[in-house]
This record gives sequence, structure tokens and C-alpha cells, in this order.
Amino acid sequence: MDDEDRKITAYHEAGHALVQAVVDDGHMPVHKVTIIPRGQSLGSTMFMPKKDLLNHSKRRLLNQICCGMGGRSAEEIVMGDITSGASGDIRMVTTTARHMVCDWGMTELGPIAYGESQSHAYMGTVGAGAKNYSEETAQKIDQVIHDIVQEQYIRSLQILNEHRAALDTMAEALLEHETIDGNHVNEILEFGEMRSPIIKRVIAEPEPEPDAVDDETESQAEEDDDKGDLSGEEAPAPSPA
Amino acid sequence: MDDEDRKITAYHEAGHALVQAVVDDGHMPVHKVTIIPRGQSLGSTMFMPKKDLLNHSKRRLLNQICCGMGGRSAEEIVMGDITSGASGDIRMVTTTARHMVCDWGMTELGPIAYGESQSHAYMGTVGAGAKNYSEETAQKIDQVIHDIVQEQYIRSLQILNEHRAALDTMAEALLEHETIDGNHVNEILEFGEMRSPIIKRVIAEPEPEPDAVDDETESQAEEDDDKGDLSGEEAPAPSPA
Amino acid sequence: MDDEDRKITAYHEAGHALVQAVVDDGHMPVHKVTIIPRGQSLGSTMFMPKKDLLNHSKRRLLNQICCGMGGRSAEEIVMGDITSGASGDIRMVTTTARHMVCDWGMTELGPIAYGESQSHAYMGTVGAGAKNYSEETAQKIDQVIHDIVQEQYIRSLQILNEHRAALDTMAEALLEHETIDGNHVNEILEFGEMRSPIIKRVIAEPEPEPDAVDDETESQAEEDDDKGDLSGEEAPAPSPA
Amino acid sequence: MDDEDRKITAYHEAGHALVQAVVDDGHMPVHKVTIIPRGQSLGSTMFMPKKDLLNHSKRRLLNQICCGMGGRSAEEIVMGDITSGASGDIRMVTTTARHMVCDWGMTELGPIAYGESQSHAYMGTVGAGAKNYSEETAQKIDQVIHDIVQEQYIRSLQILNEHRAALDTMAEALLEHETIDGNHVNEILEFGEMRSPIIKRVIAEPEPEPDAVDDETESQAEEDDDKGDLSGEEAPAPSPA
Amino acid sequence: MDDEDRKITAYHEAGHALVQAVVDDGHMPVHKVTIIPRGQSLGSTMFMPKKDLLNHSKRRLLNQICCGMGGRSAEEIVMGDITSGASGDIRMVTTTARHMVCDWGMTELGPIAYGESQSHAYMGTVGAGAKNYSEETAQKIDQVIHDIVQEQYIRSLQILNEHRAALDTMAEALLEHETIDGNHVNEILEFGEMRSPIIKRVIAEPEPEPDAVDDETESQAEEDDDKGDLSGEEAPAPSPA
Amino acid sequence: MDDEDRKITAYHEAGHALVQAVVDDGHMPVHKVTIIPRGQSLGSTMFMPKKDLLNHSKRRLLNQICCGMGGRSAEEIVMGDITSGASGDIRMVTTTARHMVCDWGMTELGPIAYGESQSHAYMGTVGAGAKNYSEETAQKIDQVIHDIVQEQYIRSLQILNEHRAALDTMAEALLEHETIDGNHVNEILEFGEMRSPIIKRVIAEPEPEPDAVDDETESQAEEDDDKGDLSGEEAPAPSPA
Repeated sequence: MDDEDRKITAYHEAGHALVQAVVDDGHMPVHKVTIIPRGQSLGSTMFMPKKDLLNHSKRRLLNQICCGMGGRSAEEIVMGDITSGASGDIRMVTTTARHMVCDWGMTELGPIAYGESQSHAYMGTVGAGAKNYSEETAQKIDQVIHDIVQEQYIRSLQILNEHRAALDTMAEALLEHETIDGNHVNEILEFGEMRSPIIKRVIAEPEPEPDAVDDETESQAEEDDDKGDLSGEEAPAPSPA
Repeated sequence: MDDEDRKITAYHEAGHALVQAVVDDGHMPVHKVTIIPRGQSLGSTMFMPKKDLLNHSKRRLLNQICCGMGGRSAEEIVMGDITSGASGDIRMVTTTARHMVCDWGMTELGPIAYGESQSHAYMGTVGAGAKNYSEETAQKIDQVIHDIVQEQYIRSLQILNEHRAALDTMAEALLEHETIDGNHVNEILEFGEMRSPIIKRVIAEPEPEPDAVDDETESQAEEDDDKGDLSGEEAPAPSPA
Repeated sequence: MDDEDRKITAYHEAGHALVQAVVDDGHMPVHKVTIIPRGQSLGSTMFMPKKDLLNHSKRRLLNQICCGMGGRSAEEIVMGDITSGASGDIRMVTTTARHMVCDWGMTELGPIAYGESQSHAYMGTVGAGAKNYSEETAQKIDQVIHDIVQEQYIRSLQILNEHRAALDTMAEALLEHETIDGNHVNEILEFGEMRSPIIKRVIAEPEPEPDAVDDETESQAEEDDDKGDLSGEEAPAPSPA
Repeated sequence: MDDEDRKITAYHEAGHALVQAVVDDGHMPVHKVTIIPRGQSLGSTMFMPKKDLLNHSKRRLLNQICCGMGGRSAEEIVMGDITSGASGDIRMVTTTARHMVCDWGMTELGPIAYGESQSHAYMGTVGAGAKNYSEETAQKIDQVIHDIVQEQYIRSLQILNEHRAALDTMAEALLEHETIDGNHVNEILEFGEMRSPIIKRVIAEPEPEPDAVDDETESQAEEDDDKGDLSGEEAPAPSPA
Repeated sequence: MDDEDRKITAYHEAGHALVQAVVDDGHMPVHKVTIIPRGQSLGSTMFMPKKDLLNHSKRRLLNQICCGMGGRSAEEIVMGDITSGASGDIRMVTTTARHMVCDWGMTELGPIAYGESQSHAYMGTVGAGAKNYSEETAQKIDQVIHDIVQEQYIRSLQILNEHRAALDTMAEALLEHETIDGNHVNEILEFGEMRSPIIKRVIAEPEPEPDAVDDETESQAEEDDDKGDLSGEEAPAPSPA
Repeated sequence: MDDEDRKITAYHEAGHALVQAVVDDGHMPVHKVTIIPRGQSLGSTMFMPKKDLLNHSKRRLLNQICCGMGGRSAEEIVMGDITSGASGDIRMVTTTARHMVCDWGMTELGPIAYGESQSHAYMGTVGAGAKNYSEETAQKIDQVIHDIVQEQYIRSLQILNEHRAALDTMAEALLEHETIDGNHVNEILEFGEMRSPIIKRVIAEPEPEPDAVDDETESQAEEDDDKGDLSGEEAPAPSPA
């Protein structure tokens, strides 16, 4: 990873983390941000959910989409160019928005399920997974999904522009330290600088089970791994009911 | 389940139960309401059908959709936010409305069957389950399904708003006692409070067959389990002919 | 089956039988009507075709659709509500109307075959059974099918309204005797009452072949079994060529 | 087969034969007409092509569609009702018209092939046989096919109305003799009556090969079997190149 | 093959050969024309490409479509009727035009690939080979393909009308000699008559390999076999890259 | 390969190389250009990426499409005709543009994923790979893809017209030397002539592994092989995330 890629990654992750720190209601705080590549991931932002996620409220889902757009928005603001690195984020926010429209009845299309017809057959071939709604309805669904994502994208741009100094500080911290914690994110947002010390932890490779205990807190955290292309944000994706 | 989730669950189930108690014609009274999680279900409302369900009349199907919307409506009225917890209810009411339009000829589209073409073939692959009607007809079907559900959704909101005090009382009773019976639901609706005593029953896990006899009444009841996401309402779903 | 279901079944079957008795040209007289459940069937109307059915004329097909709508129409007139019990009838009349339009060239769409493309392949998978006509043609087909069925539905309502007293008498006879014969149907229509005696026959379960001889007349009759949901009318459905 | 069905069959076959006798240019004369049922066929009209059919000219294809409509037209003129018996004819003329439009470039849509996309795959499943043209083109194709068939249908009605006496005479001859030859058809058309003697031939069932020689002329004839439903006209259908 | 079919075949092949002789730039001269049937082919026009065909230029592809339409055009001009014999030509020119639009970016639709989505799967079922473009784009593609073919069809009609005498002479030469060479085609076009002698060659059936050497020139020629239906022109069809 | 094909190939490859040399920001310089056929490839242009490609920025993707159009543009400018040789380039640029629109959110359609519905099933048959968006959205996607490619096509035409002399010099160098290096490309662009010596290298056929070391630089290069039809440009195609 050369300097250009490291810088893009740092701003991309800082964008996710900063937006989440601003929009979160204490439900899903940022746990850690890192630009240490792992597997196919160039960097990742991890979250620490306060409780088991049983339900997803409309307000929090919109925040989640906003956070998901934070990486792309940071690239756009800082680089003046955009990359394919946000492809995973784009897929995630589209999926979430689609669930809000088609499964959870959270939009102007009403509490109606818009689904694919289910034709299960022995030996596979689910057919074309044909839509069970009309082209006109498909157009409305496309429009509402687009509007939800576009609105949160603009909101994330506004948040990052409002906290531009914090964004730069956070990206610089990542370039210097590679990994920072959630409290550093909050300090940068509040005071313009990190105040807690950086504790260098050796993140051990997966080890034999006896060690699993120490890693408990870590393993409960939800990660936003950017798989190979700086994207990710998979963890907070709501598991549709 | 933290307090927030318990409160949402209590109001969601109270919404189902209260709407059903208001719209039912004695055909399918509420049997029991509970917020004790079981399996993937955070709570459930159970019904006690008065006889085998051989046919479904249009009037009762509309009531059933109204009851199904009661959970979402309660969330909206009380929380000012809506959750993914109604996804099962949304799927159920959409399926019921679709049957009314496409299989049972109960709407302005007339007594015509609008179906998927049936191409059964050895070794599966039902093809795309292609619709055998035009896009124009598909649009009309979407519109009528939407209107049926939307109308009952609004009706359920009106019912709950009219009985807002009863809704609060019922939710509080659930938060206090976890399970209440159908007569409590009716008492709260009529007198504003529960008058019968709460009988704590130990709901035994499924046991060997000798015990099945005692549980007969229970097992005949139709449940509205909210599977993991506060939804459900599966039992009264009409089995299409 | 409680009193409510018995009453609905009696009127539903009486509706089929009365309409058929009025529209038939002697080709397919009513043989027997019963509200004794058998298998999934709550009741049935049986016909006695005068000869092998080799061809289907347009006039008789329209009568057949009219008869098929008689059950739903009776429910609507008498109960003021409609049930899912007509789902089998609705499927049958739609199929018949579709054949008239798409296979038998009996409508304003002309003597043209509008069919699904045939792609037979080893090991199944008929593909999506894709239509080989345009969306515009599909719209016209939907419209003509709708108009055929709707017109016969209204015609059956008119017939039953004209013979409302006979409908009530026939339903009462069914509730009292459970099974009446075709001549009773005709007597009620002509004289307002049954004049022939009711002969109670024991309808034996299917037995070893030696007994099959006695049942010959019976087995030739075409039945309109209402499978579980008061519907049916399968027998007179034309076997498309 | 009762008298009604025999009469319909006689007029249906007479319709085919009479139209062909009028429109043919000597290329494909009527060989024999019969109302003796064979297999699923209630009757048939056989033709005797003068040479191997290598190509199909537009003019002769239109004549062939006209002949195919002759059966339905005769029913309509004589009975005032139409039957499902023409379903095979309807399928045939539609297929021929479709070839003229989509494969042989014989219409205003130009010398362009409008076909199904070919996706051959190991072990079948030709997919949905998806059209490789647009909905707009599909509409034009439907329209041109409709117009070709409708025009020949009207032409066959005109031919039969012009020769109404011959149609009656021919049907009566069929009802009396069951089978007549092509020369009888021509005599009735020209002189109003049959002048050649009727030679009763025993049409033997398919026999061992030694007998095949005698049947040579017969076996070369193209038949218009009406399979079970008075339809057919399959033989002269052009084999698309 | 009777006289009528021989005459149609002679004009059809003469049409192909004459158009090619007029439009060719020396790249793909006519090698031989024959009305001797071979296999399913009633006649054929063979070409002798000057080099391996690695690429296809737009100008030459249009000429090739023009030549492909020459057979149908000759039938239309001389017979005043058209036959199914051009079906192979029609398929070929449509395929070529489609490649020009969808694969080779040679039209006003731009250098964009308009293709079918590729979903290969073990055990077949390529799905519906669904188009990956919109209905609107499909309409444009249909229009451009139609216009390309129609324009070359008209061009071929003009060429044959301009050289009507040569067309007649060439058809007569074919009816007399059955096979003529490319230089005869050019002589008829230039001088109105054949000037070189006709060398009767015995075209041997495929023989053992030692003889293959003598046949080298022959085997390099590209043929325009009219398979069974006077069509063909397959050889010069560009193999899409 | 005759002189005509060699000239087309030389200009086609020179077009790719010259456009890339002009638009590249140092990220992906031209490594070598050759018109020595290899396998199905008539020629190829190879690139030498400066680092692992982890992400693709919008600006570079547009440059890549511009470079991909350089071959077709050179043919058009110099020959006044276009060939099927660009089919591989056309496929590549369309795929890249589609990713920009549908996966990477880089256009006015917003950061939304427009994808095919994923229905994986045991034993293949991905169904029809049905689009999960509406026809209206499909139209917009087609339009934006078209505009992206068309704009870069025009840009490549402008670049080559501006550097027409360099284009001729480069093509002549290729016709003379068959292979030139990236520095020659840059010299021609800057000084109007090659200044470095041509080093004739014997490009060995793939050999046993001991030799693999010497070939390291070579093997890292990304090639733009023109497979059989002068096209290619596969290497720099972004691997979608």
C-alpha cells in the first residue's frame, strides 16, 4: 500500500467513524478505527453495540446509512475524486434502504411487503426470482430507495464539512498510529485533539481456544471491515426479519 | 431484552390484542397476550377460534388485516418511531390482501383468478413462475392490495387512538405481569382496568405425550407469535383454498 | 360444520344448481345436490351429461361460466358478505374464459392462438413459459377474460334474484334433507316446492369391483365437488383440445 | 357421435374442402373428405400435393390459411354458434402467419428475422426462450399476424357464403356417404351435385409391410385430420426452412 | 425439382451472384454459381476470398447484406411473388446487422456493447438469457437493425433492376448449363453474354485423402449453399470476435 | 496477415498507445507495443502499472475508457472505415462504464447499487439473473453508460487528431520494427521521432521455471492483447470490488 492508498484509506475510515460519532444516540458507539490491512481489508471501523440487536428503528437505520456513506463522502471532500473503494458501502446502504421500503414498511409506499415470488423446487433453480409487483411499483421502489440513500449521502457530506478539521486530525492520527480507539474519535470531535494515550496492542492472530476469553470484548464488537476496497460496514446491517 | 425492547414489545402486543378485541365479532377472541420470549419470539398474542375455519368471509379478513396492523400502529402512536419488528405482520397482511384480490375475487377486480402460470416439470424448475397477466393488470393488483392494507392500517390507528388509555394500561399490565388473559384485555377495554385476578401459570416445556391432554385447550388456541422481531400474527392467516 | 357454515354451503350449492337448471338446454341437467361433506368437500352439485363431450360451443361455455358463478352470487345475495369458498369456482371460470380467448378464437380477439411458447427440454425446465405475445396483447386478453366472467357473474345474480323464492326453498330443502335430486331442483323451480319423494340412499364408500356395476349411473355423472372451501365445479370444465 | 356432432363435423370438413377447391391453383387439390372418426379425429380432409414441397410462396400460404379457416367459417354460417372444434386449425394458421412475419420476411415488417434467442445448454433448459426483440416490435408482430389471419377468415366466410348451396350439398353427401373424393367436391362446386359414383373402399388398418406398396398413393396424400376436436389441417403447414 | 422450382432457384442464385459481382471491391469475388442440388441445398453461390478474413469493415459488411438480399430481390422482380426460400438469407443478414449494432459499435447507437447477460452454470440453464439493456434500448436496436437490412434490400432491388437483362441471361445460363463460373458472371455483367467456354467438371463426391490436393482451390472457396430452401450465404458471415 | 491488415493493426495499436501516453498520470505508463501476432492476437499494447491496483479512481477509469477507444478512433481517422477489430475494446469499455454506474456510484444515478438479484441455488441455474430495478431505471443506466463511453470516444478522437503526425510516425515505426517500447512512444509524442535505439529482443516461448526470473519485469506488465480482432485492453480493466 503506497502513500496515496494509505491516505485514501485513512480518510475513508475517518469519514465512517466521524459520521457515526456525530449521529449515534449512544446505541452503537465507535469502538476502534484502523488502517492496518487484514485479509482483503485495507482498513476497518469497529462498533460496540450496547445490547443485542433485536429490532431496528427507522431513525437508527437512517443513521446507519449516513455512517455508511461517510467513507465516500470523506474521499470526495478531501481528494476531489472518488474511488471504487466504496463499493461495499454502496451495496450495504442500498440493501438497507431496500429492506426499509420492501420488508419493513417504513416509507411512503406503506406497510406492504414488496417481494420476490418464492418458487422453491427440488434441485434448485429458483427461476428468475421474478418480482411479484408491477413495473410501476418497481419504479416507485427505485425512486424511494434512491431518495433515502441520496439524502443520507448529502447529510454525511454536511457533517464532514462541518467537522472538517476533526476529519483531518483523525486521518492524520490514523496515518501516524494506524489504530485509534473510540474515545480518541470522541476527543478529536470534542476537543480537536486526542487526549487519551495510544495503547499499542498486539492484535494476535486467532489462537487456540484457551486465549479466547481475553478477547471477549473484542469479539463482541461489530466491525466495519473494508474488504479489499475500503468498503464494508457489514456488521451493523440489520438482519431482516 | 432491555427496558426499551420490553416496552416496544409490550405496546406492540397490546396493539394487536386491543384492535382484535374491538373488531372481533365473537368469532376469534383474544386468548392470551404475553411478552415472555419463546424461541425467536419476543412476545405473542394468542387467539381462540370458536370453530374450525372452513371459509373466510371478506368482513373477517379485513378485521384480521386491521388486527395485524395493530402492533405497528401502537409503536407509531406511542414511540413516534417505527421498527423492523412489524415485518412479519406486514408480510402476513400483504399475503392476505393478495389472496382477496387474486384468488378469492373479493375486490373491484372481479371474480377472476389472477395467478402465476403453472409449469410443473420433472426435476423442479418451475421456471420464473411467470405471471399470466399483463403489466397493466399487475398495476391494478398492486394498487388494490395497497389500498386494502393502507385502509386497515389507518383504521387500526384510529381504534388505538380512541382507546389510548386502554392501550397504555394494557402495556403496563404486560410489563408488570408479562402475561395477561383475554378476559383482562376485555376488562381493560370496558372498565379501564383488569378486574380478574392474574393466575400465574407455569407454561411447561413440551412434554411426553401423556401430559398432552391437559394442554388441549391451550394447543387449540391460535397464536400470534412475534418471531424474534415482534411480528407474527401467523395463526389467523387464512389458508387459501 | 356449524349452522353458519351449513347455511352458506346450502345456499352456495343451491345457487349453482338453480342457475344451471335455468340456463341448461337439456345438455347437462342437474343430477343431484348435496351438502354432505366428503373428503375436503363441504358440498357438491352433480351433473348428468347427455352424451360424450366432444366439442364445446360458445353458448354452452358461457352458460357453464354462469353456473360456476351461481355459488358466489347466492352468498352475496343472501348473506350480504362473500367468502373464500368460491375460490375453486373462480379458478374454473377464469380458465374456461382464457381458453375461449386464447385457444378457441371465440372472442373479438379473433381466431388466433395466443399461447405460451413451447420449449420442451430433456429433464424438465420449461423455462419461464414465456408468453409469445406482446404486453399490449396481454392487456387485451386480460380485458376480454374479465368481461366474459363479469358478464356471466351479473347474469347469475339476475337469475338468482328473479328466482329468489326458489333459491330459499332449495337451500331449506338441502338443510333439511342434505341431498336432493335434479328433479327436485326442477320442481322447486317450476312449482315452488318439491313434489317427488326424497329417497334416502346410502352412498357407499368405494368398494371391491363386483359392486361397481350398480354404481354405474352414478359414476358417469359429473360432479361439482366443493373441495373444502365450497368451491369446485371442476367436472363441466371443458377439456381443451 | 350423435346427430348434432355428425352434422357439425360434416359442415366443418365440407368448409375446409370447399374453400380449398375454390382457392387452389392446382398445386394441392382435395383428395378425399371423410367424417369417419379415426383415433382422436372426428373427420378429416386430405390433400394430394402435385410435387414435393420445397418452397412456400406467399400467395399459396395465404390460400392455406384461408382453407384452414374454412371449418370454423362453415360452423359459424350454418350453426350460428362456434365450437372449440377449430382449436387445431387456429393453432395451425397462427403458426403459419407467424412464420410469414418472423422467418420468411413476407410482410411490412421487412426481410428481417424476428426470433427467439438461442441458448442451448447441456442437459436442456433453453431458458425462457426469451424474445430477442423489443415489446414495440412484439406489438407489431402481433398486429400483423392478427391481420393476416383475420383477412383470410373473412375471405373464407365470403367464399362459403357465395357457395352456400354447394356447402349444404357437400355436408349432406358426407352425412349420407361418410367419405367423398376430391372429384365429388369439384363436381358439387361445378354442377351442384356429385356425378361420379361413390366407391366404397375399406380403409384397412396399418398392415405388415408387404401391403405397403398398394397404399402408396394414399400415403403420399397430405391429410387434414381433425384430431378429436374437428380441427387439424396440420399436413399442409409449411415446414419452415 | 420441377421447372417452376428450377426457375426460382436459377433466379435466386443469379440474384446473389449478380449483386455480389456489382458491389464487391475485389475482396470476395464470385467463384461459381450452381443449381445442382446437393444435400438439402437447391443451389448455391460460391465465393473465393482473397485472404484470411481477420476483420470485417463496415463497408464490406453492408455489401455482404446487400448480396444476401439479392436472392429474394430477384424472386420479387421476376416472379412478382416471394417464397420461404430466402429464410436462410434473412437469418444471416439479421445476424450480421445485429453484430454491427450490438458487438461492433458501427451504428448511431455508438461504440457500446449491447449484450445478453452471461450466466453460465453447471448443468445448463442459462436462465432466460436476459437482455442487460432496457426496453427503450431494445426498440432502438430493432429499429437500426431493420433500417440497415431494409436499406440494403432496396439497394439490391435497384442493382438488379439496373442489370435486369444480365439477370435474365444469367438465370438462363444456369437453367441451360446448371453451373457457371465467376468469370461467366463477370462477362454477362460486362458484355451481356458469356464469352469463356463452359468447362464441364465432374464434381466428385468426397474421396480418400490422396485426392484432396487437386481440390485445394475448390475447398478454399466460400460457398453460399442454399440449404433446401434456396437460402444460405453462410460462408461470408463474419465470425464475431 | 496482408499489408492492409498489418496497417490497420499498426494504427489500431498506435491509437491505444498514443492516447494512453497522453492521458496517463504516471500511474500506468505504456510498456511496449507490438504487431507481432501471438495466439489469436494480431497485436497488443502492454502497460506497466506502478503499484498494485487496490482501488480505481473515477478520473483514471475515464482515462482507461479513453485509451480503450483509441484503437477504433485511429482506424476511423486514418482509414475512413471502421472494423470489427474493436469488438473486444467495446466490450471492455462498456463493462467498465457499467461498473462505474451500477457498482461504484460514480455518476448522476447516485451512490446506489443497481444489481442483478442474486439467487444462488444448489446445482447452478442462477435463474434469469433478473434485474432488481425497474425498466425506467434500466433506461437511465443505458443512457449514462452510453454517455460515458461516447464522451471518451470523442475525447480519444480529439487527442489523436491533435497528435496526428505522432500517430503516423508510431504506426510507421510499428510497421518497420514490429515492436517498440514505451520510451519510443513517449519520444515520438515529444520529439516527433524515436531517439532510443530499438533493441531486438527474442521473446522466448514460455520455458521451464529456472528462466522465469529474467522474465520478471515482463510478466508484471499488463498487456492489451488484441485477441484475433485487434481488440483487447483487458489488463487494466478494474477488478470490481
